[in-house]
Amino acid sequence: MNKFRDDSFALHTDLYQINMAQAYWEDGYHMKKAVFELYFRKLPFGNGYAIFAGLERIIDYLKNYHFSESDLEYLQEIGYSEDYLDYLRTVRFTGTVRALREGEVVFDNVPILRIEAPLLEAQLIETALLNIVNYQTLIATKASRIKQAAGGQVVAEYGSRRAHEFDAAIWGTRAAYIGGFSSTSNVRAGKQFGLPVSGTHAHSFVQAYRDEYTAFHKYAKTHRDCVFLVDTYDTLKSGVPTAIKVAQELGDEINFIGIRLDSGDLAYLSKEARKLLDEAGFVDAKIIASSDLDEYTIQNLKAQGAKIDIWGVGTKVITAFDQPALGAVYKMVAIEDEDGNMVDTIKLSSSPEKVTTPGLKNVYRIVNNHTNKSEGDYIALSSEQPDKESKLHMFHPVHTYIGKFVTNFTAIDLHENIFENGVLVYENPSVDEIQSYAEQQLELLWEEYKRSLNPAEYPVNLSQACWDNKMRNIEELRKLNS
Amino acid sequence: MNKFRDDSFALHTDLYQINMAQAYWEDGYHMKKAVFELYFRKLPFGNGYAIFAGLERIIDYLKNYHFSESDLEYLQEIGYSEDYLDYLRTVRFTGTVRALREGEVVFDNVPILRIEAPLLEAQLIETALLNIVNYQTLIATKASRIKQAAGGQVVAEYGSRRAHEFDAAIWGTRAAYIGGFSSTSNVRAGKQFGLPVSGTHAHSFVQAYRDEYTAFHKYAKTHRDCVFLVDTYDTLKSGVPTAIKVAQELGDEINFIGIRLDSGDLAYLSKEARKLLDEAGFVDAKIIASSDLDEYTIQNLKAQGAKIDIWGVGTKVITAFDQPALGAVYKMVAIEDEDGNMVDTIKLSSSPEKVTTPGLKNVYRIVNNHTNKSEGDYIALSSEQPDKESKLHMFHPVHTYIGKFVTNFTAIDLHENIFENGVLVYENPSVDEIQSYAEQQLELLWEEYKRSLNPAEYPVNLSQACWDNKMRNIEELRKLNS
Repeated sequence: MNKFRDDSFALHTDLYQINMAQAYWEDGYHMKKAVFELYFRKLPFGNGYAIFAGLERIIDYLKNYHFSESDLEYLQEIGYSEDYLDYLRTVRFTGTVRALREGEVVFDNVPILRIEAPLLEAQLIETALLNIVNYQTLIATKASRIKQAAGGQVVAEYGSRRAHEFDAAIWGTRAAYIGGFSSTSNVRAGKQFGLPVSGTHAHSFVQAYRDEYTAFHKYAKTHRDCVFLVDTYDTLKSGVPTAIKVAQELGDEINFIGIRLDSGDLAYLSKEARKLLDEAGFVDAKIIASSDLDEYTIQNLKAQGAKIDIWGVGTKVITAFDQPALGAVYKMVAIEDEDGNMVDTIKLSSSPEKVTTPGLKNVYRIVNNHTNKSEGDYIALSSEQPDKESKLHMFHPVHTYIGKFVTNFTAIDLHENIFENGVLVYENPSVDEIQSYAEQQLELLWEEYKRSLNPAEYPVNLSQACWDNKMRNIEELRKLNS
Repeated sequence: MNKFRDDSFALHTDLYQINMAQAYWEDGYHMKKAVFELYFRKLPFGNGYAIFAGLERIIDYLKNYHFSESDLEYLQEIGYSEDYLDYLRTVRFTGTVRALREGEVVFDNVPILRIEAPLLEAQLIETALLNIVNYQTLIATKASRIKQAAGGQVVAEYGSRRAHEFDAAIWGTRAAYIGGFSSTSNVRAGKQFGLPVSGTHAHSFVQAYRDEYTAFHKYAKTHRDCVFLVDTYDTLKSGVPTAIKVAQELGDEINFIGIRLDSGDLAYLSKEARKLLDEAGFVDAKIIASSDLDEYTIQNLKAQGAKIDIWGVGTKVITAFDQPALGAVYKMVAIEDEDGNMVDTIKLSSSPEKVTTPGLKNVYRIVNNHTNKSEGDYIALSSEQPDKESKLHMFHPVHTYIGKFVTNFTAIDLHENIFENGVLVYENPSVDEIQSYAEQQLELLWEEYKRSLNPAEYPVNLSQACWDNKMRNIEELRKLNS
């Protein structure tokens, strides 16, 4: 069918990026240094925080960035000039990237990535960066909500069959792990990322052997660790009693971990199943439940005293079912002018929260030295040094009368250097390290920001200098375009 | 980071498939012929039909099915025996597949794919097949709804940045094209599938040149076809007048296609912009609108007389925003017994609609020869020949008193042969052929099934023999497990 090999990700971008890049190149504007920031304006799921994921994939994408011959052939076929394509052939990513660590707790309007690169490069990579961050951050955040609902209990990810195609299945389950899940059912994700994999058998296994007794015995013959799925025919009349019978017959020959419920009323069934297991002496056998679970059903089932030990969550986490898109944007905040000086840029809007904040900026988490909790995030111009200040005025970036003065704090620069002039200077941590980092960063938040319903609004503030600079830019632009 | 190469999709499956396969293999059960059907139980979005997409990707997956050395190394590391892995090394897909054509109009409980294969193979491929069909079918269906709302107008797909990772961006936009969209912004999807690509410039282009006048001129210098994005600063005061001014100045040097609105009140702005364009003599200039559009907003905007010619739809289609998961399942309907005979299998449930329908079956669309409209789909045992009957009794598979007799019909077998004993016997049509096929198949439906809100329920019926067989199986199984 397809005459072109899919051998690079350079064309994984919107056509307008290729068109703009062409205009820049023909105008000799393509090497102008530009600064872009990637951030979202609104937290998903009504949550009080998000968990950033996607950096490892972005690093891989930027490190390998190039147009393949088949990319160029295709572009030629749809009408681009050979001169331009010859130029594209030479393009690599040569920019400087600062970014949050994966697993970082992140809020609306906090720059997740800051890209300083030749205008043409910075433009071409926009779509892929957004594609990666929007999805992976969404899933890590959803997973974190679900994990909070489960409390100390284990949550396993089972969603591959409902994920949005292959990449979502594996990058999504990695993001879920970052957000606090304990394992994945997807074996390829296990192989790729070193995630723990889990799973036993399906209804079809029971069907293949017709009856549960034979099926459980057959499974136990090959697998020492046994979780029996008990709802193929009738959970309480047939499934659980048969699981118990087989476990009793096999005794120490197997490690009877427990049973899995996959349908029906999980509160009722788990309580009845628990009784049956306990009566048979299997007090340590676990009850694993799955069936369209999310943070709300888990909270409800727990409130009803469901006897569930391990939660299997699929569809609702891997698709971020109740809000399947995060709206991160990628905005230019500065560009080199004719004289080689960096000048700020701004995008206006009739909605004040959509007006961009110009200039090269850093972001700090202001941690109170007394409570060891965060007072908020503080966005300052890169020329400022809030970590050297003894007192900070933190105020709301739209409703400026809301504010406070903070003393005795530590201002932590949240960005890591990832690429410097195209050279990778960062080493990816392991997924376990990333998961721990997320957990540890959540510790810095007061509980009121972590409520799943109507959490308090975490302060993300601008420095006075940053705010003044924004107002100045708005004024200048009004004059220029009026 | 990763020591294993990601060089096959064989591990793109749930761990339990690998575990079940092992039990089958050790038990000498792995070569038993099994029949599985893939179908969904509920139409998405409250729609009256769905559009099947995903077959091309499935063919590619099955054709190339194999465990790579790095897959086997990984499985060994997590504890599988060398003997089993040596067996897996030899596994290829050797089964027979019948499937709907891509673009087929499909309903709840209609088998989309029918897999006849050695039990081990049929089990291992389940997760990937569901992953593909669930996503692509969902998006083709959502796109079809949006296209119906747009009527004869063009809809362009812009959603890559919000898609669930890379694969969703490209397979999703292909599915949207199948559902009736006219183009994609994703260049890689254009290259891969031959889809028309579209796009002009972004806000950042205007920002890079500071003012719209310079930016539009710069764009026009490189691109003959011009669509100017007019909402970077102020749509009606600055954007549209500047676009008109530049179009007037350049005259025939460019092909001024029109303007694009990307924010604000699209009804109001499009009407005002239309006036300005018409007054300037640009009566043929198109107004392209985007900004979180879906079938509901398009219907509303049209009802308010918005002057929009082309609809750019992103997030809402590529994520199937209002219902981001389709619940297709993969169920065993027959298996070879000890004596080499095929016997039916069934999965019971306390919900009648979740009880599977056993046996090897075909599905027919019963088209009334008089009206040339479909009377419904008819699922029959493969031993039946409804196309040879002169009169059919079609009745509801749960509420059996609802039914009708049909005469003077054509019974069209909806399945194509795709693989025969592992050999691909089917050639993928082009995406344009698939799009046309979907359109043509929708013509067979009465309008009442195509309403976006509360459509009539399209009949998907069982033959009498199929129903009798199901009842017999339920009885038998009850005896076996009681």
